Amino acid sequence: MGKLYVAGYGPGAVGMMTADFRACADACDIIVGYSGYIDALRPLYPGKQFFDTPMKQETDRCLAALKLAAEGETVCVVCSGDSGVYGMAGLVYELSPDFPGVEITVIPGITAACSGAAVLGAPIGHDFAVISLSDLLTDWALIEKRLCAAAMGDFCVCLYNPSSHKRADYLQKACDILLEEKSPETVCGIVRNIGRDGEAAHILTLAQLRDTRVDMFTTVFIGNTNTKIIDGKMVTPRGYRGV
Amino acid sequence: MGKLYVAGYGPGAVGMMTADFRACADACDIIVGYSGYIDALRPLYPGKQFFDTPMKQETDRCLAALKLAAEGETVCVVCSGDSGVYGMAGLVYELSPDFPGVEITVIPGITAACSGAAVLGAPIGHDFAVISLSDLLTDWALIEKRLCAAAMGDFCVCLYNPSSHKRADYLQKACDILLEEKSPETVCGIVRNIGRDGEAAHILTLAQLRDTRVDMFTTVFIGNTNTKIIDGKMVTPRGYRGV
Repeated sequence: MGKLYVAGYGPGAVGMMTADFRACADACDIIVGYSGYIDALRPLYPGKQFFDTPMKQETDRCLAALKLAAEGETVCVVCSGDSGVYGMAGLVYELSPDFPGVEITVIPGITAACSGAAVLGAPIGHDFAVISLSDLLTDWALIEKRLCAAAMGDFCVCLYNPSSHKRADYLQKACDILLEEKSPETVCGIVRNIGRDGEAAHILTLAQLRDTRVDMFTTVFIGNTNTKIIDGKMVTPRGYRGV
Repeated sequence: MGKLYVAGYGPGAVGMMTADFRACADACDIIVGYSGYIDALRPLYPGKQFFDTPMKQETDRCLAALKLAAEGETVCVVCSGDSGVYGMAGLVYELSPDFPGVEITVIPGITAACSGAAVLGAPIGHDFAVISLSDLLTDWALIEKRLCAAAMGDFCVCLYNPSSHKRADYLQKACDILLEEKSPETVCGIVRNIGRDGEAAHILTLAQLRDTRVDMFTTVFIGNTNTKIIDGKMVTPRGYRGV
């Protein structure tokens, strides 16, 4: 019986991969993942066996990985960011009861809330909420409820999957909900292509964010009441200097 | 004029450090940090110059680091976990206007929400809120408000600093607030000494968590409505298999 690792490699830059991720990808028999991620990793692991599937085939991909592990292979299911944050770790565990004896290990990675924050400055320096705007797997009503709750709690908010071709106005809808509680002057930040070629960050107000188009390669940060701009960086104080 | 890096090394295990963290700590002239963190790093960097201060001297420590950088040194301020999540990144930026010209770079690390989650299974596989229960720098009323909002939004919740000698009953108070919205049967998990000697994880209900004593080396996870236990792991489905 083999082993299955579910491992996040962070935003993509080799420097933001952990030693455990590298060791795991080095040592495994086969790396399984979404085609886009595999294309990014292939140059790092010449000669390695890869198994990739397109987007929206997550269940098939994880089943294939579990099957290979049950057959005795050591398998590494790779995710960008952290495999436990909107990644494959949960799905692998959900499917695992049909593959008794496969030993599953989750290798954490740098999630976009942390890697994007580092580019902007320190936007999540106090309590924060992470919300995905994708309604592929979640009712939009629940997403709205969470946006509303996060705004009521004056959380910093980090939005994953803020947009796609089919959901071009979702960020605008999200901002409208946040604007019911948060000031239009709330400091916000967006980061595109974190840690990859073409990385770009931009700081703006919540009112401006509402009218900004972003794509699916972008992570969005909305500050709390105390978030400020210091020398071009987005900073949410923890309180060391008073408020 | 020197450079200042604010870098998170993750939970402590060398395997969960990123290549960027290692390169930054290797290359800098001096590593600055809390004494407990410096003691953990010293064996990795023999011959390196260190500057450490005790807890609650965060401002002095960051001022010293900025002063050294302004004098031309390349300085690495180290934090456990991620330097942007209750770490020193925000404070360094807040203090930086008095040190014009010092170039500040934040190096992200694996925060306890991610490293602890990996030990438990996949507890934050859907939208989550991160809340610190420490009221050293934050009014307890605001912490209560955020707990209440997180429960109303059916977020998974990750609690940092859940307890200390002076705040022995804070986790109980937090659970009582969460129990106003969340079921007493909600799946929860606690992880102590993540990635270090004596790592221990435990899964329990929210009702049981309320009557459990934890210490400051523990990170606490509270599930959402759909969080379940699968073969001893705490798993919050994203929705691939339906709810």
